[in-house]
Parts: sequence; structure tokens; C-alpha cells
Amino acid sequence: MTPAQHNPEERPLGALLAPDIIALLDESPSLIAAETEEMHPADLADVAEAMPFEQVPVFLAALPKDRAAQVLEYLDEELRAEVLEAMTAQQAAALVTEMNPDERADLLEELDEDKAEEIVEEMPAETRLETQQLRRYDPDSAGGLMTTEFVSVEANTTVEEALRRVRVIARSEKREAMHAIYTTDEGGRLAGVLSLRELLAAPEGASLADVAWTEPQAVSPTADREEVARVISNYDLVVVPVVSESGHLMGVITVDDVIDAIEEEQTEDVQKLGAVQVFDEPYMQIGIFTMMKKRAGWLSILLVSEMLTTQVMQHFDKELKAVTALTLFVPLVVSSGGNSGSQATSLITRAMALREVTLRDWWRVAGREFPSGIVLGIILGVIGMLRITLWQYMGWYDYGSAQHSWGQVALTVGCSLVGIVTFGSLAGSMLPFLLRRVGFDPASASAPLVATLVDVTGLSIYFGVAWMLLLR
Amino acid sequence: MTPAQHNPEERPLGALLAPDIIALLDESPSLIAAETEEMHPADLADVAEAMPFEQVPVFLAALPKDRAAQVLEYLDEELRAEVLEAMTAQQAAALVTEMNPDERADLLEELDEDKAEEIVEEMPAETRLETQQLRRYDPDSAGGLMTTEFVSVEANTTVEEALRRVRVIARSEKREAMHAIYTTDEGGRLAGVLSLRELLAAPEGASLADVAWTEPQAVSPTADREEVARVISNYDLVVVPVVSESGHLMGVITVDDVIDAIEEEQTEDVQKLGAVQVFDEPYMQIGIFTMMKKRAGWLSILLVSEMLTTQVMQHFDKELKAVTALTLFVPLVVSSGGNSGSQATSLITRAMALREVTLRDWWRVAGREFPSGIVLGIILGVIGMLRITLWQYMGWYDYGSAQHSWGQVALTVGCSLVGIVTFGSLAGSMLPFLLRRVGFDPASASAPLVATLVDVTGLSIYFGVAWMLLLR
Repeated sequence: MTPAQHNPEERPLGALLAPDIIALLDESPSLIAAETEEMHPADLADVAEAMPFEQVPVFLAALPKDRAAQVLEYLDEELRAEVLEAMTAQQAAALVTEMNPDERADLLEELDEDKAEEIVEEMPAETRLETQQLRRYDPDSAGGLMTTEFVSVEANTTVEEALRRVRVIARSEKREAMHAIYTTDEGGRLAGVLSLRELLAAPEGASLADVAWTEPQAVSPTADREEVARVISNYDLVVVPVVSESGHLMGVITVDDVIDAIEEEQTEDVQKLGAVQVFDEPYMQIGIFTMMKKRAGWLSILLVSEMLTTQVMQHFDKELKAVTALTLFVPLVVSSGGNSGSQATSLITRAMALREVTLRDWWRVAGREFPSGIVLGIILGVIGMLRITLWQYMGWYDYGSAQHSWGQVALTVGCSLVGIVTFGSLAGSMLPFLLRRVGFDPASASAPLVATLVDVTGLSIYFGVAWMLLLR
Repeated sequence: MTPAQHNPEERPLGALLAPDIIALLDESPSLIAAETEEMHPADLADVAEAMPFEQVPVFLAALPKDRAAQVLEYLDEELRAEVLEAMTAQQAAALVTEMNPDERADLLEELDEDKAEEIVEEMPAETRLETQQLRRYDPDSAGGLMTTEFVSVEANTTVEEALRRVRVIARSEKREAMHAIYTTDEGGRLAGVLSLRELLAAPEGASLADVAWTEPQAVSPTADREEVARVISNYDLVVVPVVSESGHLMGVITVDDVIDAIEEEQTEDVQKLGAVQVFDEPYMQIGIFTMMKKRAGWLSILLVSEMLTTQVMQHFDKELKAVTALTLFVPLVVSSGGNSGSQATSLITRAMALREVTLRDWWRVAGREFPSGIVLGIILGVIGMLRITLWQYMGWYDYGSAQHSWGQVALTVGCSLVGIVTFGSLAGSMLPFLLRRVGFDPASASAPLVATLVDVTGLSIYFGVAWMLLLR
């Protein structure tokens, strides 16, 4: 056996060993199983991803069937779909039958529908039924995330008997993690839970009902993955049971699937914040045309909305001709509103995602954003006026004219910034609430969307202030 | 025992029971321990948060010491700091000694330094040493996240002996999760790992060396939490060992701490993307002045940078006076660059956070963003030109003048959009690489920062195109 690997950074296992394994696959495939026995399936998946496509099925065939199934679970989604589609339905069925039921159902979703059906047909009856049940659920719901491999025993079982059964199951072929043992009542409904450690610690002779925790945290099969993540994270669980309306245990969701779900959810939120339609694939893998399509929609909508700024400018075209100094500060004034709005939006959408803020908190949020906006606006307004004063005194530019003094221009910029930053903070913080209220995802309140909304209003504020201080 | 709670949404346990528990605390505090025995400490923490501050120490005192310590682990950070500071050092030490070592070290970080020292002084010698060791590490590093409670046995131990020892430890007071058993070599260095389930499944009489996995994934105590999260998530671990340079097992990090770390990390990234200095507290809890301070800095920097747009406008003031129609499209043209830049930035910073894209991929990213930028720019340019043509033909506005035709204005807007969107996509995608290259966090490339950078350049592109097509 090889020595312990203490730091994954020191020795990038997959990268170093991949060429050796690929060479061995050519020369003596029968040795592959033994040589890779101690490797983590995630690393074996990296090796498979490094080899030519036509080698991958050969590699999988050289591994014991259960190991090959584990490698499939870690393999790049696109690659594994291609590999399975290249196999006969019988070969594919034999392989995926060994997978965890939740991963198996997910994988079938990625395949061509006809091929998926063929593979399901070739499965043993029990596996087929299990797979069909799981595929009924949205892959992003608790039902879609759960695996049907779990350990449950009746609550009146003794500790010793439960331990004996657990050992039998642990020694059987199932590879599932078995962090928790569930107890059921006479009707087969979920009654309690205890960890494997608690089972080991339980006094001999006790019944599980004496030692199990009642009222276990559970989720319904239709709960979305955000809800599942929240229960797991709030209660520091490693596994959460999925329970039907009648109270029967349907499956369990393990924390590793939840981490993946949290990361996907976060990627979606960041993409929405950047005004991109959600990608279902990593950046480098998504086709360039698909990527453009997912960006063009929002960019066009934003452009068309931003055209309202032209409308506002046209409306004030006479004033603009009269006071050209006003024009100079249009980008400055307008972008400050967008910036303060982006800040507020990212703070609030994140606080909503973490459930730190709910719909009914809107007025408390407004009560914080309004005074903050005013103070931030005053800070920016003072900086803006200082800038104009400096240029004027240094003689770098003359903002005055026959009709107005430079001071009027400075005051217009300063007061507009106060109004615009206040409006930006309020609009940016209230838009996520508004979106949620009308049933949209609050994360759709992207920074560019807020900036665009604030641009149009900001321009009106700017010209409004100018009209009062300068043009009247 | 109460019936199973199947859906946490149906029966918000904490909310419903809090008043009963608070009332019971007044009447007969001696019943509290028994009545709350089956409740999850996370729910008890919710109850504590709902009661008047001066009741919280009474409530904690009414619970068994180990339960009270668990409740502390789930309690709001600010509240628990106040509660501990209100206790004597002896009382506080007695309570925190029962906590998980990692949580205990974190909690002490939140206290006033002198108070923390006093509490540490009052701890039993062993706990004190353990705590001082953990506090040496940055709370966001593996050393700061790890707990020192784990099970390790020599690799030559037999399965039955290991199981016996595990049961002894499970029955002792330690509450730690015990998902994995680590094996050590003669020198006490980490040699292997097996799950509790694998230990139960192992054939009797075997030695652990025969059944444990060698080369366990591990992290060094100085690894940052992102690295820890990546190892846990890549290898679907429930616990990851922390190993010193000499190969000795120092502690373990459990997945629940990693989930918290992933969520904090993500909150930071979203706040940075919105150009806000990172908050260390939830939005509703952070003081309003602290919040303003964390927003004012970036807003001011962005305002000062955006002043360059005024510079550019001043440079072209004669041209602006000659062709006022140009002014009308300044916000439109400039914001489109910012929008395409924000899209690219959010895609790339997220891909970098997920390690989908690394520093050396910069030219591959540029190779995707450049053509996408051109295509997206052409789409927006065509929309922009159509808008101008429509207004002109409908007689809503006349963009022509004695010096130039309306068509020249339309062409200027169209061509500028192509240039600006291309530049925005490139700048937005390259900025995160640049930041990482010079040692900054790529997530600091906020949407507003990119928008500001692109505004200045976009304006120059706009006037440059105008000069070629219209002013020359």
C-alpha cells in the first residue's frame, strides 16, 4: 500500500497518475482493478476525463462494476451521457443499476429520452420501479435529490437487534453512507432517528424507542432544494429524511447532494445578479451560441429600457443647448445612482436568499435604506461640488456662462447626487421585495436592471433640480 | 413522547413553544430540562432569542450543562457574547468547557479580549491548552475550523478492539459526530481512514490496516476555508482530517462547519460583486453607521473614477455644442458597455470561485468573450439604429442638422455600440484575471467597478466614432 497523502496540493493525484493508468489500460487492462483499488472514485473520474473518449468504456469495463458505477457518479455530465449512449442498453443498465438511486435518476435525465427508456427497460424489476418513482420528481426538489437507500427499523426493536441488522446491511452490497437509523411506528410512519454513534452508545437491552430522538427534522418530497439546504444547514444534519404526506419515510437526502445544490443555487444567483439567464453548464463548457443567447435577451431588454434616457434628454433638449455645462455631468450623476442601487440590490437579494430578511421586513429595510441613501448622497454630493469648485478655481474649465454662474452648476450636481443616491438605494432595495411579491425570484433584480431603472429616474431628477436651481 | 414532526413548515416548533417555555421558566424552572429534552438545540436557541435578555442566563442555568453548551453553539453571535460577558468568568468557563472545541474557540474570538482571557484562565488545564492551540489559527483557516475531538487508533488494532474503543468513546461525554475512524502508523502519523459503517462491516479478526482506506484526503491547518470546502465537496466527505507538516493528525473539520463557510464565502462574493465592503453581520443586525461606512468607500472611489467621464466630455465640448444630437445617446451608449461588462464579470468571478476557470485560462476566456462581444454589440447596434430610424420617420424627433444627416447619427450610435459592448465584455472578463494576477481577490471586480471603467472608455469610443463618421 502506498503512503498516506497528506496534502492534496502537494501531489495532484489524478494529474500525476493519469498517464500511467492510461498506459496500463493499453498493456494489461486486467491489472487496472487492483492497481486503482485504493483510489477515490473522484480521482478515477479525473483520469477517465483525461483519456481519449473511446478508451473510457474500456476503462469502465476494466473496473469492478460497483467501482465503475461510482466513477460514473463523479464523471463530467456531458461525458458520461456520451459514454452511456455509446454502450448497448444492456451494458448501460448493468452499470447504472449499481449506482446510488438518486444519482441514477439524475443521470437518466441527462440522456436522450429514448435511450433512457431503453436502459430503464433493461434494469432488474426492483431497480426499474425505484428509478421510475424517483424520476417522477423535479430533479431540483427533495424527491429528485433523495436516495431510497436508508436504514429503518421498527421503534420497538432492541438495540442489539438493530445493531445486528445494521451490520448485515453494512456488509451487503449497498454503498450508502448510513449516518442515521430511522425508527418507524406500527403504521410504518417515521417516528424517530438516531445516529450510528448513538446506536453504538445505547445501553444493551434498551429498545430503540427509548434512545431515538422523536420529532426528527424532515422535508416533503416537493420541497425545493433551497428548503432542504436550509433544514440541513440550520440543524447541522448529515442526512435529512423525506417523508410523504401520510408520514411514511420515502428516502433520505445526504449532505453531499445538498452542498452541490447550494453551489448551483449560488451560481444561479450570481448569474442573475449579473443579468445573465442561468447557465446549466460550466462557463468553459457551454456552447458559445448558447452563451450569447443567454446574454442577448437581457442586454436587449436593458438597451430598450435605457432608451427612455434618450427620451428624457430629448425632452430637455432646449435646456441642454442653453446650458451645455449640464451635459458634462450626465454620466457621472446617472452612474452614481446605478452604483448605490447595485449595492442595495446585492445586499438585499443575498439577505433574502439566507432568509435574514422576509417579505414583511420591507418597511424596516426601507427605514434603513432611506437615511443611508441621504447620508451617502450628501457625501457624494460634497465630493462632486468640490471637484467642480477645484476645476473652476484652478482655471481648468469654466462652468459659468452668460445665463448662469458656475456655482449654480455645482449646486445642481450636488443636490442631484443627494436625490439620485437616495432614490438608487431605495429602488435597489425595494425591487427584490416587489419581484418576490408578484411571484418572481427576487434574485432577478440584477445590478444592471437596477442601474437602468435608476438611470432613467436619475436623469429626470437631475434635470428637475437643474430646472429649479438654474433654468427657471 | 410527541408524534413525529413531518414538515417543519407545518409546525414551527420554536415559534409555537417559545411562550410556553418562557412561562414555565418563570413558574417552575426545575421542569425546563425535562420538558425540552427532545428539542433540537437549534430550536432551543430560537426560544432563547425570543426571551428578554436577563432571562437567557436563567434559562441556560436551568438546562443540563452539556445541553446549555449546545444551545450556545446555535445562539445568535451577538447575543451569546452579551450573555457570557454578563456571567462571572467561572460560570462562563464551566459552560464553554462543554462546547465543541472549534465552536468554543470561535466564541472566545467574539468576546472582549480581557473577558476571553479571564474565561480561559478558569478552564480545566486540558481544555485551556486545547483552546489556546485552536485560537492560534485564523478562524477562517482549516486550523480555525477544526475540532480536536476525533477517533484515531493504531493501524494494527483489530476490528473488534477498535469497535470496543469506539463504543467506549461514544458512551463517554463527547458529543462529536464520529463519522470516520482514523488509523495511525507507529510514528503516530495519519495512515488511513474508514467510516463507522465500514468498521461495522469489517470481518471479525481483521486488523484495521486491512480494511482502512489509505491516502485519505486531508488539509493542512493553514489551508483557507475555500480549499477545505473544495476537498469536502469534491470527494463527498462528511469530515476531513487536518494534518500537520509532519503528518500528524491535529483535528477534523465536519461538513456542517464547511456549509456555514461556503455560505459566508458566497455572501462575501455577492457583496463584493455589488461593490460593498464585506459585512460580518446579517443585513438587519449590522449598525446603520457601520453599513454606511462599508458602502461609502466604494461609492466615493467609483464617483471619483467616473469623474473621468466629465473629463472626456469636456475634451469634446466643442463637438457637443456643434452636434447636440450626440448628447442624447450618451447614457444609452455608455450603460450598454457597463451591462455587458457586468455580465462577463459575474460569469467569470463565479467560474473562478468554482475553479472552473484558472489564471492560465485567460486567453481561452478572451477567445470566447471577444467574438461574443462583437455579436452582442451588433445585435444592440441594430436595435439602436432601428430606434433612431423609427423616431426620424415618424417625425417624433429630428436627429439631423445643417452640419450632418440623421443617418450619420444613427450610424455613430450603431458602430459605437458594437465597439463598446465588445470592449465591455472583454474588460469585464479580463479584470478578474488581472486582479488575481496581482494578488487581489478576483471577486473584487464588482459590477459597478466594471461599469465605471467601461463608462470612461465607452465615452471615448463613442466620441472617437463620432469624430470619424460625423465631425471630421
